[in-house]
Amino acid sequence: MQRVEKWGLFEVSSKGKRDGNPFRDYAMTVTFKGEKEEISVNGFYDGDGVYRARFMPSYEGVYTYKIEGNFADSIEDAEGSFEVVAASGKNHGPVVVVDKTHLGYADHTPYYSIGTTCYAWANQPMERQEQTLKTLKDNAFNKIRFCFFPKFYEFNRKEPLTYPFERGNGEGLDPERVEQEKSCRMRFPGMQETEQDYGFDYTRPNVEHFRRYDMRIAQLMELGIEADMILMHPYDKWGLNEMDKDACDWYLRYVVARYGAYRNVWWSLSNEFDFIRIKTLEDWERYGQVVSSNDPFHRLLSVHNGGPNYDFSKDWVTHCSLQRVDFYRTTEDTDQFVEKYGKPVVWDEICYEGNIGLGWGNITGEELVRRFWEAFMRGGHCGHGETFMDPEDILWWSHGGILKGESPARLQFLLDILRDVPGGYLTKGEGIFDEVVGYAGGHVGEGWGICYDYAIHYLGVCQPVYRQLILPEDADYEVDVIDTWNMTVTPMGVKRGICKIELPGNQYMALRVRKVG
Amino acid sequence: MQRVEKWGLFEVSSKGKRDGNPFRDYAMTVTFKGEKEEISVNGFYDGDGVYRARFMPSYEGVYTYKIEGNFADSIEDAEGSFEVVAASGKNHGPVVVVDKTHLGYADHTPYYSIGTTCYAWANQPMERQEQTLKTLKDNAFNKIRFCFFPKFYEFNRKEPLTYPFERGNGEGLDPERVEQEKSCRMRFPGMQETEQDYGFDYTRPNVEHFRRYDMRIAQLMELGIEADMILMHPYDKWGLNEMDKDACDWYLRYVVARYGAYRNVWWSLSNEFDFIRIKTLEDWERYGQVVSSNDPFHRLLSVHNGGPNYDFSKDWVTHCSLQRVDFYRTTEDTDQFVEKYGKPVVWDEICYEGNIGLGWGNITGEELVRRFWEAFMRGGHCGHGETFMDPEDILWWSHGGILKGESPARLQFLLDILRDVPGGYLTKGEGIFDEVVGYAGGHVGEGWGICYDYAIHYLGVCQPVYRQLILPEDADYEVDVIDTWNMTVTPMGVKRGICKIELPGNQYMALRVRKVG
Repeated sequence: MQRVEKWGLFEVSSKGKRDGNPFRDYAMTVTFKGEKEEISVNGFYDGDGVYRARFMPSYEGVYTYKIEGNFADSIEDAEGSFEVVAASGKNHGPVVVVDKTHLGYADHTPYYSIGTTCYAWANQPMERQEQTLKTLKDNAFNKIRFCFFPKFYEFNRKEPLTYPFERGNGEGLDPERVEQEKSCRMRFPGMQETEQDYGFDYTRPNVEHFRRYDMRIAQLMELGIEADMILMHPYDKWGLNEMDKDACDWYLRYVVARYGAYRNVWWSLSNEFDFIRIKTLEDWERYGQVVSSNDPFHRLLSVHNGGPNYDFSKDWVTHCSLQRVDFYRTTEDTDQFVEKYGKPVVWDEICYEGNIGLGWGNITGEELVRRFWEAFMRGGHCGHGETFMDPEDILWWSHGGILKGESPARLQFLLDILRDVPGGYLTKGEGIFDEVVGYAGGHVGEGWGICYDYAIHYLGVCQPVYRQLILPEDADYEVDVIDTWNMTVTPMGVKRGICKIELPGNQYMALRVRKVG
Repeated sequence: MQRVEKWGLFEVSSKGKRDGNPFRDYAMTVTFKGEKEEISVNGFYDGDGVYRARFMPSYEGVYTYKIEGNFADSIEDAEGSFEVVAASGKNHGPVVVVDKTHLGYADHTPYYSIGTTCYAWANQPMERQEQTLKTLKDNAFNKIRFCFFPKFYEFNRKEPLTYPFERGNGEGLDPERVEQEKSCRMRFPGMQETEQDYGFDYTRPNVEHFRRYDMRIAQLMELGIEADMILMHPYDKWGLNEMDKDACDWYLRYVVARYGAYRNVWWSLSNEFDFIRIKTLEDWERYGQVVSSNDPFHRLLSVHNGGPNYDFSKDWVTHCSLQRVDFYRTTEDTDQFVEKYGKPVVWDEICYEGNIGLGWGNITGEELVRRFWEAFMRGGHCGHGETFMDPEDILWWSHGGILKGESPARLQFLLDILRDVPGGYLTKGEGIFDEVVGYAGGHVGEGWGICYDYAIHYLGVCQPVYRQLILPEDADYEVDVIDTWNMTVTPMGVKRGICKIELPGNQYMALRVRKVG
């Protein structure tokens, strides 16, 4: 009997019809049944006369499956069974919403999302893709954000390794959108004169493209990295945003059927959805429903903004996926979003460490790391990106490759600190003198006298040479000084009452205060 | 005939009654008359049987005056005349509101307010006061903010050089406020147990205290420095905020009569008005009316906030006097305030350069200077302060003395750049890639293609190695790279069209773009 791990990927395939447009003309449904769950999934055509269906079991034990549909006149091996065994290694299950506003793995391991962004990494030359995977393996990132469609933008003018659709005569295009597009597609200075390329058949996926994403998602899964898949985006010159309603909805269903069973997949309907000017809020709402209603595994699902954020209160939105509020304000607003939406808050773009000429791509490592600390102290999550100039125009943010910045090591340090939080989760507490406090567990007192059983007081850009703590007189607290940039933890001993903690007078310090016993 | 400069201070004095409480019981009014103005001012008792009245002439030529009132049974030398001659040296007249939202001297010289704060400098030992004046002389500051009442606060626990009122038995106190005070006076950890000192007579000014302020204001005037006088504040242990209505209103009228004729005086009703918890908005409104209606010279008048700002739309408020919006946001909101209130915007507290343990007093010089640039690029003004730990607890922010920080030299550099702006005033323009733009004069184009006749593009925390400019193809522009921290201006030559300007990859850079001819 075949064996698969709990939360692993189990796939069945079957030969079927090739005539007409087999992607669209025939259906396959497979029902998987174990002792504790029964789930029907849509199959998908994968070219060469092969139909497949994918399933993620959530329980151990013996499962059976049954294949149905009109994709074949007579289905060979239409039934079967397999055994689901215990998860092992980095397999903690999918990331799910915990206690409304936190994220955790299905096995109850807390999850702090230390993301990164490589929009077009899976469309670069294969060697670079391998290099990207190696870099990811050597760093702290446990989520990566990337596009499924090719990207056209500054530093991104080469054609992709593969296209998501077969070459054709524009079938599946919306003529009205093509017309509108001429006036509203996102353009940058120096990129105005780009010719559109509508030479695809938007009703026929290019399976070579899709198969490579199968492989990359599986590799990320092995590395314990969440694959935050961006299903649409504004950086387009191929007509992908001019698909008609039917073609676009169908594309989403195909993607969900194909990738939804990978436990590490998250759905991001779009990057900077509002910059795709020809799509309406009605479109986005429908896309959300299409993905949500076709995904039997209920993967995390959100929409990322360029300007004003999406309405995250919608039922099908599982978490806030955010870009900075404005040029100055990013993760400092984390707790406001937690409170407003009552959902996990994930900052997916907070400006990148780098030195390019675009305003969102040239902050220092210090500033990027500061924004991460703000996010986590306030009960949220955060994503990194890197945009250093390169002689060959290979920028991590889009192409992957290697990292040059100073922030990644500090993000590993941050993750280590977070993993040590008792109970797993930090909530924003009350600061005494403008610091931001993340706490876990109980507290005594109020106002200036508030003290938590466990708290990290993050001082951000301040550079004090001491800090006063107001602790209860009747209990002991271990105090550590954390240098978040130089990555040191210095124990300051056990304290009680009003006490003064000496500090080195550098920026980016934190005090960790833990009740003894 | 006596001579005085236009906008100089002309004083008359006369002997009068000493019985009862001569500060309160008798009145003196002096009418000054020139060819173009006639102004009556209130006199004030200055102790030792002497009554004085002060006047600032706004025109050249011969003036006469006439002294009246019941302060003497028969007034000696009740009439006289003097000649007003042209202003000279640093005398550009008082700072007034220009074009609704800007500030300028009465002689039409533009005024960019580079402020500093030394709350209690005029109450320190005399040697330190002299040292403070010397430091001011050697730096760029053209406004200083300081308190008239003594200050009790962290680092400020010594008794002042003098008290503003005579010792007494609490006359002029409001018994209800004294009672309320016990629960709501501003307290800090470790300062809770301070005994109040109500042993003053709040109806009798201590003229020694007031005379020293006469001298200091006059010395600041000679240095070309505006004296932003804070008339009340929350850092009190002497009962000054528990004065009754009559005593407090009378105190304000006395101050206005005494100091209002100095051309460099600004009135700040309070520092952190909202932290004086026993005073109501009705009180502040009345104070504003009292000062405004008793000040024949219409000095600049505002109220400075701790938390939410004052309602600057009130008729008697001449400008916005602001503390940072929150811990992260300060001068980035300047243009929003300009737009909201249509009045000049002056940031009087944006956190201080220093390293003390309090959140508002430990930012870097870089961050302080960045906040200044933000303020001025957006059409506002800004104030400095310094709080470095000192073995003798002498911190510039409160005590004056010497400066230790890195920001003052950069503020001089900023002022030099501002003084070079054609037409005198910057307005917030449109940035291309998240930079903040201050411009003067006309513009062509819009959106990404907008270009001003004169503009400074300030890049703040960004560290790009190049920046694209989109200039018209049919005109020439001189481009300079300004390093606001290292204080250099590097000409990049004459440019037109889309061009790329190389930058060193440091933070705190600006591009200056000036149309040729």
